[in-house]
Amino acid sequence: MTTYQIPSLVASKVSPSAHALLQKVHHFVETECIPADAVFDAQQPTDPAKRFLNTYPTIIDMLKARAREQGLWNLFLSQKHYPEGVPLTNLEYGLMAEIMGRSLIASEAMNCSAPDTGNMEVLAKYGSSAQKAQWLTPLLEGKIRSAFVMTERHRASADAKNINLEIARQGNEYILNGTKWWSSGAGDPRCKLYLVMGKSDASNPNPYKQQSVVIVPAGTPGVQVRRTLSVYGYDDAPHGHCEIAFTDVRVPLENMVLGPGRGFEIIQGRLGPGRIHHCMRSIDNSDAKGAMSFIAQAKVYVPNMSLAVIDRAVQAHGAAGVSQDFPLARMWAHQRTLRIADGPDEVHLNQLGRTENTRSGEIEDKIAMQTKKTQELMREFGIQVRANL
Amino acid sequence: MTTYQIPSLVASKVSPSAHALLQKVHHFVETECIPADAVFDAQQPTDPAKRFLNTYPTIIDMLKARAREQGLWNLFLSQKHYPEGVPLTNLEYGLMAEIMGRSLIASEAMNCSAPDTGNMEVLAKYGSSAQKAQWLTPLLEGKIRSAFVMTERHRASADAKNINLEIARQGNEYILNGTKWWSSGAGDPRCKLYLVMGKSDASNPNPYKQQSVVIVPAGTPGVQVRRTLSVYGYDDAPHGHCEIAFTDVRVPLENMVLGPGRGFEIIQGRLGPGRIHHCMRSIDNSDAKGAMSFIAQAKVYVPNMSLAVIDRAVQAHGAAGVSQDFPLARMWAHQRTLRIADGPDEVHLNQLGRTENTRSGEIEDKIAMQTKKTQELMREFGIQVRANL
Amino acid sequence: MTTYQIPSLVASKVSPSAHALLQKVHHFVETECIPADAVFDAQQPTDPAKRFLNTYPTIIDMLKARAREQGLWNLFLSQKHYPEGVPLTNLEYGLMAEIMGRSLIASEAMNCSAPDTGNMEVLAKYGSSAQKAQWLTPLLEGKIRSAFVMTERHRASADAKNINLEIARQGNEYILNGTKWWSSGAGDPRCKLYLVMGKSDASNPNPYKQQSVVIVPAGTPGVQVRRTLSVYGYDDAPHGHCEIAFTDVRVPLENMVLGPGRGFEIIQGRLGPGRIHHCMRSIDNSDAKGAMSFIAQAKVYVPNMSLAVIDRAVQAHGAAGVSQDFPLARMWAHQRTLRIADGPDEVHLNQLGRTENTRSGEIEDKIAMQTKKTQELMREFGIQVRANL
Amino acid sequence: MTTYQIPSLVASKVSPSAHALLQKVHHFVETECIPADAVFDAQQPTDPAKRFLNTYPTIIDMLKARAREQGLWNLFLSQKHYPEGVPLTNLEYGLMAEIMGRSLIASEAMNCSAPDTGNMEVLAKYGSSAQKAQWLTPLLEGKIRSAFVMTERHRASADAKNINLEIARQGNEYILNGTKWWSSGAGDPRCKLYLVMGKSDASNPNPYKQQSVVIVPAGTPGVQVRRTLSVYGYDDAPHGHCEIAFTDVRVPLENMVLGPGRGFEIIQGRLGPGRIHHCMRSIDNSDAKGAMSFIAQAKVYVPNMSLAVIDRAVQAHGAAGVSQDFPLARMWAHQRTLRIADGPDEVHLNQLGRTENTRSGEIEDKIAMQTKKTQELMREFGIQVRANL
Repeated sequence: MTTYQIPSLVASKVSPSAHALLQKVHHFVETECIPADAVFDAQQPTDPAKRFLNTYPTIIDMLKARAREQGLWNLFLSQKHYPEGVPLTNLEYGLMAEIMGRSLIASEAMNCSAPDTGNMEVLAKYGSSAQKAQWLTPLLEGKIRSAFVMTERHRASADAKNINLEIARQGNEYILNGTKWWSSGAGDPRCKLYLVMGKSDASNPNPYKQQSVVIVPAGTPGVQVRRTLSVYGYDDAPHGHCEIAFTDVRVPLENMVLGPGRGFEIIQGRLGPGRIHHCMRSIDNSDAKGAMSFIAQAKVYVPNMSLAVIDRAVQAHGAAGVSQDFPLARMWAHQRTLRIADGPDEVHLNQLGRTENTRSGEIEDKIAMQTKKTQELMREFGIQVRANL
Repeated sequence: MTTYQIPSLVASKVSPSAHALLQKVHHFVETECIPADAVFDAQQPTDPAKRFLNTYPTIIDMLKARAREQGLWNLFLSQKHYPEGVPLTNLEYGLMAEIMGRSLIASEAMNCSAPDTGNMEVLAKYGSSAQKAQWLTPLLEGKIRSAFVMTERHRASADAKNINLEIARQGNEYILNGTKWWSSGAGDPRCKLYLVMGKSDASNPNPYKQQSVVIVPAGTPGVQVRRTLSVYGYDDAPHGHCEIAFTDVRVPLENMVLGPGRGFEIIQGRLGPGRIHHCMRSIDNSDAKGAMSFIAQAKVYVPNMSLAVIDRAVQAHGAAGVSQDFPLARMWAHQRTLRIADGPDEVHLNQLGRTENTRSGEIEDKIAMQTKKTQELMREFGIQVRANL
Repeated sequence: MTTYQIPSLVASKVSPSAHALLQKVHHFVETECIPADAVFDAQQPTDPAKRFLNTYPTIIDMLKARAREQGLWNLFLSQKHYPEGVPLTNLEYGLMAEIMGRSLIASEAMNCSAPDTGNMEVLAKYGSSAQKAQWLTPLLEGKIRSAFVMTERHRASADAKNINLEIARQGNEYILNGTKWWSSGAGDPRCKLYLVMGKSDASNPNPYKQQSVVIVPAGTPGVQVRRTLSVYGYDDAPHGHCEIAFTDVRVPLENMVLGPGRGFEIIQGRLGPGRIHHCMRSIDNSDAKGAMSFIAQAKVYVPNMSLAVIDRAVQAHGAAGVSQDFPLARMWAHQRTLRIADGPDEVHLNQLGRTENTRSGEIEDKIAMQTKKTQELMREFGIQVRANL
Repeated sequence: MTTYQIPSLVASKVSPSAHALLQKVHHFVETECIPADAVFDAQQPTDPAKRFLNTYPTIIDMLKARAREQGLWNLFLSQKHYPEGVPLTNLEYGLMAEIMGRSLIASEAMNCSAPDTGNMEVLAKYGSSAQKAQWLTPLLEGKIRSAFVMTERHRASADAKNINLEIARQGNEYILNGTKWWSSGAGDPRCKLYLVMGKSDASNPNPYKQQSVVIVPAGTPGVQVRRTLSVYGYDDAPHGHCEIAFTDVRVPLENMVLGPGRGFEIIQGRLGPGRIHHCMRSIDNSDAKGAMSFIAQAKVYVPNMSLAVIDRAVQAHGAAGVSQDFPLARMWAHQRTLRIADGPDEVHLNQLGRTENTRSGEIEDKIAMQTKKTQELMREFGIQVRANL
């Protein structure tokens, strides 16, 4: 049995049952997933024409079975929002994610990989009964995969108000027209549904009510996966980052999630306030606003620091470090995307600055109190108070 | 009453009694010490010839009385090593130090300021009864101050083996000859004793047994405080960083601390393994070696980060930021010394690298296990194992 | 004789006569000025109350005489704008400035020190005959010194439109009211005139026509040098960075420079377009706009790089590096102001970005040409042209 | 006609004929090569199994013909070392390289691409007549390509003394045994010869006389190109970075270059002292040692700066920046190798430090002269000379 040690700083916040679970995850990742990483790569076609929408490495099925029989399945799902969920705190799940991150495939093996996790949360929270039966159940079973289709070219897509794909109602159908890219996961032949964010009501005076999310089954007529995008030369097959054209794509009205004009609500829910609120109660005494600030700091700080660390490791390994013989170069490329994905650094830093500035009133009050006290002390100790102090 | 909020990450590790104490410290620092900072500066002579060995700002006496009557006194002293000590963990004291650090004078007001704290610990731990009675008692009362006199010019003094001041025994006396600098605190007229590190047995084959620490009362014949050193233009009066010449300085044998050749033991004790061991038990599951590595990381990381933060604040304040109108420039200068004091960054990084490298055996074993497992999986899944994998 | 070597990259651009002059400057600086630096410091009062408006180190008079007898005098003054000027190119003068920068006092010794240089240029270029006779002549003789009084507290003074000191005409006088700070050089007892920038016509619809510059003789009633500002603890005596209050200060109409509302013209002239245009012709083939961009880059890049270099040197010298025993800490403090003075980094970077963006049209045209050519080649080589290329 | 503008700083050092040539190169690169880059990529097989040792994009042949008919051919070859060479200075060729660097394929189109350039220089300088006839002639014609085979796995190959491949003489043949990697260019089907560096005399007491370079024709029995290495996911086909096993590879004695034990001489020649000496005369007044120091600075500084610049551009482009839609990610990956290739940063910085330290004597002399002068001035001005100055 390998030994997992909780980082000292947070050890006291992890329950004994979570610790036992983390130990099992650690053993599974170190002894079964990491050794399988190279097999996962070797099982894929080398010909790019066959790497997407075609096949996937079967070793993942073996690992999924192994994970499931050990109870290491769907651990991302919070008991708070789903009866079948697990009672892990956000901190505990964070430690688990850290362990899973050591392997390319551990999170998929444990059915805890993006973008399925976020999509399952959306369906669990906002889906109709029919949507849950059709899509959530097989996702929770790990039988199918999914994509969240939002980003558009030439648009600053971190701000969802810029999204442009048209969702028009016609009779009992919605008709979609537009092009998306960076639709991650859509390259996998097991990907059976897209959650598509688009503009359904461009004339709504409230810019946060113009967007909707609809479910589009893969293979619907008019959907064309045109190509995949690479990340510093890596194509991340079979997952893939796809460009998808939607041309007169028709889906029934029942495929709308939550309701027309509620797209913003869904993406905010998808980014996890539920989980974050849960986290508040367990590790944080500050209100949600305070947490937002810490989240933004972590979102900017962590990828930059890990890029610096990996880059030093590359340099220490010499030429070998940039090659496929070590995971470093691929890790670097993946980390580099995290300075852009889910909002680039600049958006978060801007938001952080604005948040900090809201504290100015409180701080000015404190300085005024201290200055008044200083002046009193100056008088008391017979020191002349300078006019411009 | 001001409100002190413990950082979320460590809130659960702070006992209710410590939290109450931190709240009192916070209120005292914010409402009494910070307003007094400017008075402390204003009470000092502007003429440099009068700023040292002459007088000190009397407002500090008022603050000391205020701190003592509120029970905010000698809180640095661990119950572990001294009966009168307080039952604070290292983490709790760390939080207190963070609060005290907001004011120039709070730590002195609470009798928790360097170098007295370390010197009191040395005397409490290693001092004879007579040494305790003569020196420790008035230090604990806050009636006198002290200096630890170790650094020498043209010598890499972070390695105590390089120390060169001569301590020669003659009859029932020790005779000291040599010059020291950066003897911090020796500029204060209240500084009544120096703990002087020197070489008492240069021919000892064990290079860690050549040093001793002796107590030299300020004003002993042959002691000359020659000048003070500035830090980016700041002289830190009345504390001061002094150059002190010792010429045929004689002290009785009883002034030796712990015993001849035990200087290394003392400085290691002074850096606080007692407190660190205590800390181990309360916040850490790793052994002392592991903690050493974290301490080195913090020693390098924190001053560099705080320098970056202060420098940005200077830039944001424009010309005002470099001037005496804001504390930023002085804070920067002080922080800059911390990349050198108690061992420069380079010494700690070197040590860190060496410590990390000791883990290589364990890691190579794990990689060998994982590689073997990969090869088994390759065979099982019918993939040809590459010779050079 | 010391040997001066011109940096290889620019050696061919330096005329033989300039090279000979640079060699003399180098010898003077290395063998006379640098050894005198410590004497300059030692000749100043240590008591801050006596360091300003009182006395100055007389060694500077000896050095001035030495410089003058060697013809190393007023070399900053371009022949282009002043008949008595010297025929140095900007590049050649830049090399000279680099040599002078090795000593604290070389530039003053050679009557080439700020802010006198800029003020002499203003008077030479825009001054009336009477102003020249009264002020420029003794400045060129090195008999008096001067200050340019512009920056105001709580105002982003890099943008002169924010300047607020009031210049009101009353009869045949101007009356000045307001407070300035960072008036560098005004602490010197030899400083006999201030060039004061203020607002003379707040209601002018053209915001670039509201400002004027008037000459105020030091000691005029109503002028109060209230205090000096320190830079990381250094007061730069006797030069000084002063806060000056102007209360109903009256000067005759003849003290207006150039004319009412022409303050902007003067400060732009003072920053030296003449010298820059001269430079254009000799080392640059680009137009003035292109040069502006290089100047902004240098303004940001050089201080940041020199700060990094000095900081490494400080670290390499250990504790000695932060003290008065080496010039490093003082050099660092001085360099740090250059990230703020004459416009902070942020202003220059902002301007640079805007300038670069003006090139977008030209670049888009080139890319369009290249894309069209690519499509032709694709057809020619029988490769299917992708729709979204 | 496009317009090429020489950077102002060096414009005066470029001869009119070189300027005219640079203008032609610029026009060729901007209007013919850059548009062809995408065609070059599109002409390659996507299947990795077919990307090496198989075919190459034929558009390069068209570009080569175009370059040659315009006289833009073999411009790297200095007239100094080869009668047919061109009379460009190193600076002029540097400007040309900068222009060629804008396109993926311009340098190959003009027969100026690595590693052929260095290999042609070796053959021109050290090759026998037979070697020149057989290999140099077709290389100069651009009919074949070549590889320099030096780097070995698990060895710090920047120090050629660590090279381990065995070159053993047996009768009238050399027999090679060993494995190399990062043999760049060996993946191209047109690569017909390898210059192989190995150890021919391991027992030679002079460690710089143990190495030799022999010519091995591609396809010689015992040579196996085992695989290619990727750089952050890019395989750089058809060029390629190859791992090559040599097993009992036999070549005739005449394939030795220059002579046994002269491998060090050859690689030092290959790194171009000839060209550097040439450069000395034209742009530099310092001796070769001084130039070495500038070369090391540039070798470290330029790739680090270009990586920072490209990385900012990636961030500014958002997700598009990391993908194949812009050349940025590929450029970054290529630049990243330059912090390792031809000696990692650390080797050059170490060497730089050692070179700087050799100046200590000269500098100490100057400081002693200046200190003595200071003491004389102190006496002259009646200032007490401090003992410890």
